[in-house]
Amino acid sequence: MVYQAPVNDIMFALKSAAGLDELLASGVYEGLDEETIKAVLDEAGRFASEVLDPLNRTGDQQGAQLSDGIVATPDGWGEAYEKFTEAGWNGLPCPHDFGGQGLPQILATAVCEMWNAANMSFGMCPLLTQGAIDAVTIGGSEELKARYLPKLVSGEWTGTMNLTEPQAGSDLSMLKARAEPRSDGTYRLFGTKIYISYGEHELARNIIHLVLARLPDAPAGTRGISLFLVPKLLVNSDGSIGDRNDVVCAGLEEKLGIHGSPTCVMNYGEKDGAIGYLVGEENKGLATMFIMMNAARLAVGMQGVAIADRATQHALIYAHERRQGRGADGGPDPVAIVEHADVRRMLLTMQAMTQAARMICLVTARETDIARHMDDANARARGQARVALLTPVAKAFATDVGCEVASLGVQVHGGMGFVEETGAAQYYRDARILPIYEGTNGIQAIDLVTRKIPLEDGEVLQDYLKELEQIVTDVTRSNRVSFGSMGERLGEALASLSEASAWLGEALRSNPQAALAGATPYLKLFGITAGGCYLARGALAAEEHGEDRERAIDLARFFAENIAVQAPGLSVSITKGADSLLEVPLKRYSA
Amino acid sequence: MVYQAPVNDIMFALKSAAGLDELLASGVYEGLDEETIKAVLDEAGRFASEVLDPLNRTGDQQGAQLSDGIVATPDGWGEAYEKFTEAGWNGLPCPHDFGGQGLPQILATAVCEMWNAANMSFGMCPLLTQGAIDAVTIGGSEELKARYLPKLVSGEWTGTMNLTEPQAGSDLSMLKARAEPRSDGTYRLFGTKIYISYGEHELARNIIHLVLARLPDAPAGTRGISLFLVPKLLVNSDGSIGDRNDVVCAGLEEKLGIHGSPTCVMNYGEKDGAIGYLVGEENKGLATMFIMMNAARLAVGMQGVAIADRATQHALIYAHERRQGRGADGGPDPVAIVEHADVRRMLLTMQAMTQAARMICLVTARETDIARHMDDANARARGQARVALLTPVAKAFATDVGCEVASLGVQVHGGMGFVEETGAAQYYRDARILPIYEGTNGIQAIDLVTRKIPLEDGEVLQDYLKELEQIVTDVTRSNRVSFGSMGERLGEALASLSEASAWLGEALRSNPQAALAGATPYLKLFGITAGGCYLARGALAAEEHGEDRERAIDLARFFAENIAVQAPGLSVSITKGADSLLEVPLKRYSA
Repeated sequence: MVYQAPVNDIMFALKSAAGLDELLASGVYEGLDEETIKAVLDEAGRFASEVLDPLNRTGDQQGAQLSDGIVATPDGWGEAYEKFTEAGWNGLPCPHDFGGQGLPQILATAVCEMWNAANMSFGMCPLLTQGAIDAVTIGGSEELKARYLPKLVSGEWTGTMNLTEPQAGSDLSMLKARAEPRSDGTYRLFGTKIYISYGEHELARNIIHLVLARLPDAPAGTRGISLFLVPKLLVNSDGSIGDRNDVVCAGLEEKLGIHGSPTCVMNYGEKDGAIGYLVGEENKGLATMFIMMNAARLAVGMQGVAIADRATQHALIYAHERRQGRGADGGPDPVAIVEHADVRRMLLTMQAMTQAARMICLVTARETDIARHMDDANARARGQARVALLTPVAKAFATDVGCEVASLGVQVHGGMGFVEETGAAQYYRDARILPIYEGTNGIQAIDLVTRKIPLEDGEVLQDYLKELEQIVTDVTRSNRVSFGSMGERLGEALASLSEASAWLGEALRSNPQAALAGATPYLKLFGITAGGCYLARGALAAEEHGEDRERAIDLARFFAENIAVQAPGLSVSITKGADSLLEVPLKRYSA
Repeated sequence: MVYQAPVNDIMFALKSAAGLDELLASGVYEGLDEETIKAVLDEAGRFASEVLDPLNRTGDQQGAQLSDGIVATPDGWGEAYEKFTEAGWNGLPCPHDFGGQGLPQILATAVCEMWNAANMSFGMCPLLTQGAIDAVTIGGSEELKARYLPKLVSGEWTGTMNLTEPQAGSDLSMLKARAEPRSDGTYRLFGTKIYISYGEHELARNIIHLVLARLPDAPAGTRGISLFLVPKLLVNSDGSIGDRNDVVCAGLEEKLGIHGSPTCVMNYGEKDGAIGYLVGEENKGLATMFIMMNAARLAVGMQGVAIADRATQHALIYAHERRQGRGADGGPDPVAIVEHADVRRMLLTMQAMTQAARMICLVTARETDIARHMDDANARARGQARVALLTPVAKAFATDVGCEVASLGVQVHGGMGFVEETGAAQYYRDARILPIYEGTNGIQAIDLVTRKIPLEDGEVLQDYLKELEQIVTDVTRSNRVSFGSMGERLGEALASLSEASAWLGEALRSNPQAALAGATPYLKLFGITAGGCYLARGALAAEEHGEDRERAIDLARFFAENIAVQAPGLSVSITKGADSLLEVPLKRYSA
């Protein structure tokens, strides 16, 4: 099967859930109209299908290979990357000043889905370059920006994020990499970083590493971490390439999935130290990193949407082709398995979850644009608060959806799903990294509960819940037969989310461990309630349209009546289940 | 890490959920006592740890290899298999008459967990031999039994099950393999079978294939399928090995997991036809197959328990070793991640789900023993009905648990979980076959709803629900503080199961498609309610015991308050969600 970008689903999500028309009318996107957006999506979809998709399976089979410090990416990836950068896709959301297209985040997020659906291992490379661009944009000096941003934006050079060390994963306070200041204002870096995606490769002329490290006099913990830019090849003041820096790839991980993406062990300073440049202020590297991370987390959420959509497409085609069993009418001939109610449940679950996750991610992207570009300062602040609130949900919910949908995709294929040749198994393997990297989903849930619920004394959350409430009210008032019990189910889900939110808000003050115990079910509760409401917003928007939009109603109703129904149980688990977890003494947590 | 057989958990499940003491007292197991059972479990656990476990990871890496029709299993597997059969493990539940140990199904099921936890790819071999033994025992002539059973029971020869063909997976009515009768009473078989585990290998001197095929005059559909015994090497009337039969392995599948287990394409009759012997009556092969399949499905359920337990052990050790983040007391040093509430939720979920699934499987095994060995015919019939009811739940619920727990195991490891070296990823890959083979979990759910709910006019189910109700009543009455709201939660779960059962029973008559639409959520609802009740029975049994049994209460309470809480939502999905699925026209099931 060839990947087909779901342009209609994306456009519909943009217009209904993310309110694109309103945004365009507001003047935030100067010079942009719906037609242009549609044209960009169509073109990106074509590129994804024609250039990236054919390299997905061979990339999985060949994997990235390390030899004498040089990493070879799979056959054809070099040409594909060249085409990708030549077409200008790399700098899509970057400012014109540095050669970017200046297009909004909402569009960057939408095309990010396509690259990753067609070929997630490939899609990670520009995703990480974008992270490096964001870091330099946020924290870099004018000189760093001028020297590095144009090449990163064009994609002539790629970027990496170097956080993790063997003893410091989720807990960055334990970071040991050292940076020694030199009299010329540069630094020398020493240390080992692990899990560095695209830490070494030959796709681009240079690789710009963004590295967290400690200065000699830095305070312990997270308040003593600085951010450095460390190029693989040094860059002279005239912009030309200079000597090789003291950084090498010491190994590649053998992984469950994303085989085409090299996951490197990077050694800094095996000789005299790797030359690095401070990004932002000394000891304040994490602050820059966290700003940048919101965008990266949203992009990873979109990888979850991507793999879910890809798995769904694959399963739908198979379910229409494969004939097994009798149909409902009892006829003698075997029917396509899509006719069986049980298979339909799997397929509708896949479609509804994918679209719900996509809507959450695109709404988060929309708020990013508002935060960046609205004239009104209050609107910008509200947008920024929404980004903060929704980012952990977008990342964790959408990546859980990616794994669950990929697993359903295997199941729809039956025995064929377990055979690598079919392709369904690759999605299942590739997807599994998503709940782990860029902050595990547990970390996202803890962030949501401990930092986002209390934002502005809970006002950010209350404001958001009111918006969801309006959707539920509109659905209930519309009273359409085709909506089934959508309004009732979403009302119950929202009541559960409100109840759990209030309980957690109180627990954060009185019993923080109980709040932490409920973090993961709360994030899921938040995700299914928000996702259900956005799908319902889509169903409401579809009311005035014809036959082709009934899909919006199908998905919204199915989601409300079959997935959002988990909400009350999740609330019980949060508000009444924490003791059963916390009262178990640690010594009994053993096999 | 080395696999440690969970003998205490298994013994506790046997004694509490499966009522072992009562069974032993009833005289069903003549000559067997608790001490002997414990000794067998200890010895099996040692064998699993010492012999099978060391071959698990290397088996995954090397895989099975086909060359010139010969399949090489990974290094060391031949010696391990020899030790396995020499120790008598292969014939553990088989009758003394044919050289077996004559031990009960409940014990065979318990040790089946150990083989598969230590090395699932290896464990599949005796599992399939047992299937062949069952088929010959049920349907074979005295001559076939005498000639084949002793060698299959000893394990000198292994067995396979040949059902699937490219066009016939879940739907066996589409089977095309042909069997032509010869005047000497034998048959010649022609056709291709796929997904044949251990279809070819050198572990044993001979391989006995049990093959479904059609006679020339057979009626169409499932009523025209016969079962044949087809040896790889023909067996002379004196029991000695004769010529090679006309059956070859034409290929091995490249799979997501269980790499050590060869999954073969088998070609029968490329020359003059493979010589086969009828098992049971002509055209009634499926009946024999289905009787045998109950046992095989229970064994696969136990593979789910096995991989779940293994993944849990691995995650627990890692969670105690890995230090990241601050503890609840806010101290300056990083703590083992087992201290974090979110990680504890994952670990308790893994432990509680594993033990719940184990209890369901062991109860099903217990009913098998009752059905086979009780003196009282009514008791036997009741046992048989319970086996019929619980088998789809044991198979599907426990294998879903296997996948979910293996995925949580990856998550507990963070980035390390995605790296193959750690081992957690292998469990995740291996587990994924379990919801597919031996009847997909969708097929199990449909079997539960359409064939098991209506058994004896619904009396079998009602009788079972009453037993669960008694547990809920006992829990509620016991009123222990340490039980938290266990009684309330289980009461809600059971009410949901009863409500959904009644609704489905009615729908089977009035709207069968709506019943089918609810099959998968119903099976899950059944599994969490039954699992929650068995854990609660364990908690009740643990009341009189000391500190070491508090684990039973921990798991039961956690499961009730955090997992069984999904029950009401599942019931809503079943009783109020079917229309949202069935009213979507087929044409809209496309991407």
